[in-house]
Amino acid sequence: VKASEYLERLADSLAKLPGVGKRSAERMAYRLVSEPHGLLAELAQALQEAGAQVRFCPQCGCIMTAGEALCRLCADAGRDQDVVCVVEDPIDILTIEKSGGFHGRYHALMGKISPMQGSGPDDIRLHILFERIEREHFKEIILALNTNVESDATAAYIGEALKNRGIRVSRLAFGLPVGSGIAYADPLTLARALKGRQEV
Amino acid sequence: VKASEYLERLADSLAKLPGVGKRSAERMAYRLVSEPHGLLAELAQALQEAGAQVRFCPQCGCIMTAGEALCRLCADAGRDQDVVCVVEDPIDILTIEKSGGFHGRYHALMGKISPMQGSGPDDIRLHILFERIEREHFKEIILALNTNVESDATAAYIGEALKNRGIRVSRLAFGLPVGSGIAYADPLTLARALKGRQEV
Repeated sequence: VKASEYLERLADSLAKLPGVGKRSAERMAYRLVSEPHGLLAELAQALQEAGAQVRFCPQCGCIMTAGEALCRLCADAGRDQDVVCVVEDPIDILTIEKSGGFHGRYHALMGKISPMQGSGPDDIRLHILFERIEREHFKEIILALNTNVESDATAAYIGEALKNRGIRVSRLAFGLPVGSGIAYADPLTLARALKGRQEV
Repeated sequence: VKASEYLERLADSLAKLPGVGKRSAERMAYRLVSEPHGLLAELAQALQEAGAQVRFCPQCGCIMTAGEALCRLCADAGRDQDVVCVVEDPIDILTIEKSGGFHGRYHALMGKISPMQGSGPDDIRLHILFERIEREHFKEIILALNTNVESDATAAYIGEALKNRGIRVSRLAFGLPVGSGIAYADPLTLARALKGRQEV
C-alpha cells in the first residue's frame, strides 16, 4: 500500500466526523502525519483510552466509566429524586450540568421519534423512561429536547403517554434559538430556559 | 479518572486539528465514543497505520512509504528531469499531481519565509533545493507557492538567489484567488495556473 493511500484512509475516517468535509479531512490527515510523534500519537492515545473507558449508564444513558454499575449522577443520593430531565443525547446532560440550573435525575433517549428516519417510540429509550417513572415515582418530568419538528413530536408523544398520571410534564422554555440544539446553547441561556419551562 | 475527563481529553486533541473549534471537537468526541467499535476503532487504526507507514522523502519532501529510500515521484526516471516545481507543503504536491498539468520534479519547502513567525531562509528546505539545483541541473524552476505576503517574499528571495544562473524561474499564474491556498484550488484552475506561469 502506498503512503498516499494511508493518508487517504485517514482522511476518509476523519470525514465521517460530524461537520468535517472532504477537503478539511485531507488537511487534518496531512497535519497529523506531519508530526507522527506529536498530535497523531496524542490523538491515537486519547481514542484508545476513551474507547476503553467511556461507557453509557444502563439507567439514564449518560456517559460513565467502564466498570461502574451506574453513572455518578444516578449513583449520587444527594440529587433531587422528584424530578427527571429527559434529553435526546448524553452530551446534552453534560451541557445542562455545566449550566448549574438543574439538580435532579436525568434520562437520555438516545434519539427522538422520527418517522422519516424510521425511528419510532420503540427505537429510543422511552420504555426505560416509563419503567423508571413507575419505579422512581418522579413528581415532575422536564423535557430538555431540541427545537425541531421531530423533537416536538417526541415531546407531544411523551406528554400524551403521561396524561392523567398526576405527573407534571414540562418542556424547556424557548429561550433556545429555534432550529438549534441543546449542545450549542451557552450556560446562561440554558439556565434561563430551565427556569421558564412550560407545561406540555 | 472519570469518563467525562477521557471524553474531554479526546475533544482537546481533536480541537488541535486545523479548522476544529471547541464545540465541534466535543461533538466529534461524543460521536466517537457513541460507537467505540465503529468509527472510533476505524479512526484509531487509520491513525496507527498512517503514523507507522507515512514518511517524508529526504529529497523532495513529499510523503512516501516507510522503508523507501526516496518517494515514488523522485524514483520515477520517466518524469521530466529539466523542471522542478517548488511548493510550501507536501500536500500541495498531491493536489498538483491530481491536476495532471505537471510532469517534472517536485520540491517541498516545508514552510515559507515568515519573519513575523521567526522563520527565515535557513528554517525551510531551501538549502536542499539549492543543492539539488547544483546536482540535478534543472533548466526551469516553477514556484507553486500560495498567494500571500510571506509566500510572495519567499518567491522573491528564491528569484533573487537564482538570478544570472541561466535558470528560468517562474511562478504560477494568478488564476488562484488571492488569499487562498494551493490545497483549496480545483484541478482545472490549477492546470491553467500552471500553463500561464510568469517569469519572476
